[in-house]
Formats: sequence, structure tokens, C-alpha cells
Amino acid sequence: MDGRKMRESEVNMGHLMQPNQANVAGNVHGGEIMKLMDNTAGIVAHRHSRTNAVTARVDELEFMKPIHIGDYVTFRGKLTYVGSSSMEVLVEVFVEDLSKEGSPERALRGYFTMVALGEGNRPEKVPRLIVETEEEKKVFLEGEKRYRSHKEKKSRS
Amino acid sequence: MDGRKMRESEVNMGHLMQPNQANVAGNVHGGEIMKLMDNTAGIVAHRHSRTNAVTARVDELEFMKPIHIGDYVTFRGKLTYVGSSSMEVLVEVFVEDLSKEGSPERALRGYFTMVALGEGNRPEKVPRLIVETEEEKKVFLEGEKRYRSHKEKKSRS
Amino acid sequence: MDGRKMRESEVNMGHLMQPNQANVAGNVHGGEIMKLMDNTAGIVAHRHSRTNAVTARVDELEFMKPIHIGDYVTFRGKLTYVGSSSMEVLVEVFVEDLSKEGSPERALRGYFTMVALGEGNRPEKVPRLIVETEEEKKVFLEGEKRYRSHKEKKSRS
Amino acid sequence: MDGRKMRESEVNMGHLMQPNQANVAGNVHGGEIMKLMDNTAGIVAHRHSRTNAVTARVDELEFMKPIHIGDYVTFRGKLTYVGSSSMEVLVEVFVEDLSKEGSPERALRGYFTMVALGEGNRPEKVPRLIVETEEEKKVFLEGEKRYRSHKEKKSRS
Amino acid sequence: MDGRKMRESEVNMGHLMQPNQANVAGNVHGGEIMKLMDNTAGIVAHRHSRTNAVTARVDELEFMKPIHIGDYVTFRGKLTYVGSSSMEVLVEVFVEDLSKEGSPERALRGYFTMVALGEGNRPEKVPRLIVETEEEKKVFLEGEKRYRSHKEKKSRS
Amino acid sequence: MDGRKMRESEVNMGHLMQPNQANVAGNVHGGEIMKLMDNTAGIVAHRHSRTNAVTARVDELEFMKPIHIGDYVTFRGKLTYVGSSSMEVLVEVFVEDLSKEGSPERALRGYFTMVALGEGNRPEKVPRLIVETEEEKKVFLEGEKRYRSHKEKKSRS
Repeated sequence: MDGRKMRESEVNMGHLMQPNQANVAGNVHGGEIMKLMDNTAGIVAHRHSRTNAVTARVDELEFMKPIHIGDYVTFRGKLTYVGSSSMEVLVEVFVEDLSKEGSPERALRGYFTMVALGEGNRPEKVPRLIVETEEEKKVFLEGEKRYRSHKEKKSRS
Repeated sequence: MDGRKMRESEVNMGHLMQPNQANVAGNVHGGEIMKLMDNTAGIVAHRHSRTNAVTARVDELEFMKPIHIGDYVTFRGKLTYVGSSSMEVLVEVFVEDLSKEGSPERALRGYFTMVALGEGNRPEKVPRLIVETEEEKKVFLEGEKRYRSHKEKKSRS
Repeated sequence: MDGRKMRESEVNMGHLMQPNQANVAGNVHGGEIMKLMDNTAGIVAHRHSRTNAVTARVDELEFMKPIHIGDYVTFRGKLTYVGSSSMEVLVEVFVEDLSKEGSPERALRGYFTMVALGEGNRPEKVPRLIVETEEEKKVFLEGEKRYRSHKEKKSRS
Repeated sequence: MDGRKMRESEVNMGHLMQPNQANVAGNVHGGEIMKLMDNTAGIVAHRHSRTNAVTARVDELEFMKPIHIGDYVTFRGKLTYVGSSSMEVLVEVFVEDLSKEGSPERALRGYFTMVALGEGNRPEKVPRLIVETEEEKKVFLEGEKRYRSHKEKKSRS
Repeated sequence: MDGRKMRESEVNMGHLMQPNQANVAGNVHGGEIMKLMDNTAGIVAHRHSRTNAVTARVDELEFMKPIHIGDYVTFRGKLTYVGSSSMEVLVEVFVEDLSKEGSPERALRGYFTMVALGEGNRPEKVPRLIVETEEEKKVFLEGEKRYRSHKEKKSRS
Repeated sequence: MDGRKMRESEVNMGHLMQPNQANVAGNVHGGEIMKLMDNTAGIVAHRHSRTNAVTARVDELEFMKPIHIGDYVTFRGKLTYVGSSSMEVLVEVFVEDLSKEGSPERALRGYFTMVALGEGNRPEKVPRLIVETEEEKKVFLEGEKRYRSHKEKKSRS
């Protein structure tokens, strides 16, 4: 297998927020949302690599809007960069109040770096990402820049 | 508001099956699936009626394939019939093994009858369902038949 | 083993409804109740067949009364029909508000069809149901009718 | 209201042990069992006093047999002693392996002391316990002895 | 291995109380607290014996203060007595309202008797407890007294 | 109130990893860990500000070691930077295999930016952070740099 396109691994996953996901203030617990974002990134990575993938890092995770119990929440994940065995997934979270008309609003976003693991839990090569449009190329180059900057910081520390 | 089309309330909701949803045999607990089907039906009814809706009955719920921990499961809900305050939602469940290529397969389906509740928890009138294609008309008539048959049984018992 | 009587597999299972079982409206989630009904049917089938049994279908599940957090809820399950490897279980749910005097009231009921599975997850023969009273005979014949009607629908579709 | 008999508040509550109740060793978590024993004691106290009751102490809680995922477990609670506002409940836990014939075996037992709370969370008088048989009298006197011994220790510390 | 000191197995474990741990009255469920006390005792026993340990009994568990959702709760466990294969752990629970200044207050305490299990789930010898200060000696002797009194009761029943 | 020292809000919170926190691969779900890291950051922020605080962003969250069911995990949180209403908390996660001797190893770390909210959920001024040692000063300046860099990116986007 030579490569896969971005849209082949895209995920769009909806959840209705339940009372047992509440935090102390009565809104949805940020940690519950992060858990579902992590699941989303895992599915994208799994679909691209057809192998088990684990989370290696999370960056620039922003909380823009509180999410309430009873909201319908959509988690959208897509690849932004693919290296030799690591995959960067942008996860965006949209929230919709079902009692009101109106389109879903973005509530969070963040970058999840996933690593494909093979035998003995060693990093395994993954298919390359086939980049088609100009927009996709731009996204890929920015992802590559983040990837290199993390790697550099690590080698210095 | 006069009426809403079928596709305006359609829901397509994905979940990654977690180990804490297992039954004693190690597969996903049928009750966990029913809970998520119920959520799906609730969202469809909520979107159509823009009011709180409760489950009144479930019929012809069939389990066709076992679902495994780690499967990616999609819950699709759409209206099949709308009466004065009750709405019938067909919920279908599709399952996808992320480690394999291949399209999702249907694992369950069932009809959920939801009732819109207003002030004092009394049934409340909902917008009528706008039926457009021949296929939609057929679906609606079959739903109406089921609705009448339930009502008849109830009045006799 | 030749057969088992209805009362040998009967189950009567009580649960105190907890806050983490709430739905968005603050009552007990219908899905939580369905999950416990499914457990009840599973225990009945397990007791009758002494083998693992899975849910094949649910029919005529009716919600008659809402159930509140803090209510004491009793799940009663008993066999209504037993075929070669399939068993139909009637599950009834009774609810009791502990702060008030008064007898439990019926809140839900439904029919669960369970299939006994043996080696390689293939349907396995189960003991026949020993029917004793006139009432039991009537219940059995109605169950058989439902069983045949489901089978017929299936073969036509 | 003058008094209530022991059997009027007795509880017999069954639960099927689920995988999400496991401890690290793969058996049912002792804490999950204690939680359900506490619920059982709470229901008994609630039924006797028809008021909210909280747990004040637990004594002589013994674990006699491990409980496994998939076991059917019965929690039996009954009053052993009733003071002015405190009630002692004996909770016994019986376990049944559904794949085998044979009667349930006792797996745990313990004494839960519950206190009825009224306005402003102050202890509230509860109906006295009507003791009828010789056995019930013996149980009551032993409960009273435990109650006095706890009280004495407390006043000395 | 000859023996271990009390402080080598001490545990100090903090938890923020979440809404899904609530009881019917809206406070933290006593059973959830007992579960975390049981975990605390298990960690202490595991650290002392470096082997799997199960709960054999709980005694003199006292609830002194209600715990609220959002409280920060600390579970402190330390050995009080060690026999040949059984270990008694005192678990104390302290509660802190994060919105107020002031030190944590003791909310519960209880004694957990743990038994180390080896091959075939048979009791296994554990390292002896090295007792150093006068205070530790006193604590140990009281634990030994409780241990003997439980054993005596058991042999008589 | 003029200011608070770093160590006044430090948190050190231990958890025993339970089977219901597992991910599909059988290790502890990264999302469960993120949830507990978020709780840790929340407690630190709450202790410093004595007001409700919400998560605004998470940065440089690194997963260094997998965490297994049954591991004892310690979450350490401390302030690294405090602005007018925002607080940056460094959360580090240490893991200890209870069956082995040896010190806990670092498994994750990440920066959580919390914002104190007052009336109407508007950002509220928090006490300044009293920085004492050279090490603390260095940590504070690096935190300030991250804070400014996030702000800049935001104003440009």
C-alpha cells in the first residue's frame, strides 16, 4: 500500500452529553471531552495505518466554549501531517444546543500526535499521506514544522 | 412552523466501543447499544420537535451481529412516521472493525416511538413530517400502520 | 435433563436508582433501564439453559411510567416460550418510591428473545419448558405465536 | 405510627456482576460490593423510617468468598436493632454461579448503622421495631449490646 | 527480606469528588468512599508484602462528616498490625473544601484487614512489621488485640 | 489578599488505576489520565484563587510511558505562571508498579492554563504568585513567555 488520502481516514463522531460526564460546576468535564478527542484521533490514526496507534503528545488544545449536559457534540478528526511512524491529527469539537435552531459552533480544537506501534510495541512505518489540494499542502507543511520543532526541543532537553 | 423534512432531523452518530461497555462474555453489552440507540432516537425527535421527547416504546429491535470492544460503531436515526405528538424513529447500527478494510456492516435495527412533552409533562403537538419521495411515502405509511396497530392493541387490553 | 419449569428460572432483581444513571431531563435514562432488563432476561435464559445466551430481539417494550433517581426498582423476568434454542422472556419493571407507603407500580414491560450459544457460537438445544397450569399454557401459546410471526417476517424479507 | 415489624423493611436485591465492577485482580471490586451493601442498608432504613437515612458506621464486615464477574449476587438486608433515631441493619451477600446448579452461598456479611435525618440534618425519631418471635428478640438484644458498646467507646475517646 | 517499617508502606492519596460519585441525597455516596478506602488499604498491603492482597474484613468504620461533590479528599493508610499473612491497615479520610481556607478535617476512619495471597490463592507469609517508636508499639499491640478477638469469635461461631 | 506562594497551592494526588479506565489495547486510557491531570490543575488553580477556575488551554502534553491497570499513579501539580486572571499549572504524572521495588517514574507532563471566573462567568483577578527562589523565578519567566506567545498567535489569527 503506497499511501492514503486525507479524506480516507477522516472521522466525524457525534455524542450526546450525559449527566455522568459533568464536572463540579455542572458543565461537561473538560477531561471527558479530551478523552473523546483522544478517541477521535485514535480512530483517524487507526484508519490511516490499519495498526494500533498510541497518543504521543497533545498540543495547542484550546477550550473556546463551555459544553453543557444535553448538548449534541461532534468530534471531527483529520490528518494534518504524516511522518515515518507518527501521524498528527487535528481534532475539532463542535457543539449544538438541540432545543435551538442554528448551526453547530466550534468549542475546542487541538493537535494529537499519534505513533503507530507494531511487534514488541516498536514504532512501525505507516503509509504516506497523499496530499492533493493547495489547502492540504499548506496544512501538511505547517504540521511538518510543528513536528520538527517538537523533535528539536526534545533533542536539546 | 409548518413541517420539517425527514433529512432535517437525521442523525449519524459514531462511537468507539470501550472496555467499560463490555458484557460478561467480553463483547459490547447489548444494553449499552440500546442506550446509545435510545440517545439517537431522542436526538432525532428533539431536532424535529425542538422540545423534550421521551421514549414511549421500542419495537422489532433485532440484534444481527455481535459488536466487539474496539469496534467503531455508527448509529443512524431517521423519522419514519410523525403523528400528532408521537414520532417513530428507525435506528440502525453499523459496525466497522478498524483494523480491516471493508465497509461497515449492519448490526442492529429497531423502531423507537418518542413522545414530545410540553408543560406539565403533557403530550405536545409536533410539526408534521414533510414527505417528498416515493420511498419516503412508503416508509411513512408503514410507520402509520405500526402506530395504529399498537394503539388498537392498547385499547383492547 | 428433560425440561425445566417456569418458576425454576424466574428472576426478581432489585436496584436502587443512582444519580449516575440519570438522563438529560434528570430522570433515570431509559437506556439504563433497558440494560437492566436485558441483564434480567439474560439471567433467566442462563438459569434455564445453563449455557451462555445472547439477546436476539426485543419486542413490544413499553414505557408506562417515568422512573426517578432514588426509586427502588424491581425487574421481574420469566420464560414465556421456549423453542429449540431460543427462549422468550417477559421482563416487567416495577417502581417504588421509598418515601411513600404503597405498593410498587408497573413502569415498563417487554419481550426479550434470547438464543443459547454453544461451541463456536452456534445455537445450542436448550431444555424444553415444562408448562403446568392453564395460565402457563396460554402464555406459552401466545409466545409461540409471536415466535412464528417473527420467523415468517424474516423469511419474507 | 407506632412501630413496624422486621419483615416490613426487609430487602432482597439481586445484581448481575458486570466487567466494569472488576478490581485489578479481575474479581469483583470489594468496594463495589460494599457500595451495594450500603444501598441495601439504606433501603431498609428508608422503608422503616420513611425518611432519609445516612450511614453512621459499619462493623464486622467479613469477606468470606470472592465474587466473580458474571456471578448473580443477592443482597439481603434486615433490621436487627432500632434505637431512638439509629437503626442497625444486617446485610448478607449471597453468590450464585449461573452456569452451575446449586444454591447460592454466603459471600459477605456486615452490620450497617444508619441514622434517620430530618430538618436541618438533625437526627429524627424513627418508629420502634416490633419484635415478635424468640429469634427476633435474641437478634435485637445482641444489636442493642453492639449499639451500647459503640456508644461507650465513643464517650471514652 | 526481614521486615519493613511502617512508613515504607504508608499511602497518602488525594481525589477530587466528581458528580458521578453522588448518592441520592446529592452528597458523595458512602460506598464510593468505602471503595477508595479499600483501594488505599490494598496499596498499603501491596507495598508491604509486594504480593497481591485481598480484603478479609472491615471494622469500626465510622462516618464523621458528610463529603460533598467538589471536595478534595485525602485517603491516608498505614499498617497498624502485621501477623503471619494478614495485615491490618488504618485508613483515615480527610476532607477539604477548596473554596475556603482552613485545614482538612477528618471525615471517616476504619480498620481494613488484608490477607496476602500466593500461588493457588493460598495465604502467604508477609514480611514482619518493624516497630520503632513507643507510639508505634502501642498501635501494634492494639491491632494485635483486635486480631485475636476476631479470631476467637470466629472459632466460637 | 496580596499573593500566595507556589507551595501553598501545590497538589500531590494519588490514584490506583482501575480496570474500568482501560483503553482498547488494555492499558489505561490516555483520556482518563488527561481527565485526572485536568482535575489536578483545577485543584491547584482553585487553591491559589479560592474561586472557580476553568481550563482554557493545554500545551506540550507528552506521553512518555504507558500506564497499566493496577499501577499506582501520582499527579503532581504546581503553578508556573500567574497573570491577571489566568494561571499556568505544570502537571506531572508519575507511575509506580506496586509489585516491584523502585521509585516512581515520570510518565506524562503538560501545561494547563486555567482562568478564574467570577460573577457572570467573567474572568476575575487572582492573587499574584510570590516567587522566592532563583529556580522559581526561572520557571515563572518561561511560563510568562509561553503565555505571551499564545496571546500573540491568537491576536494574529
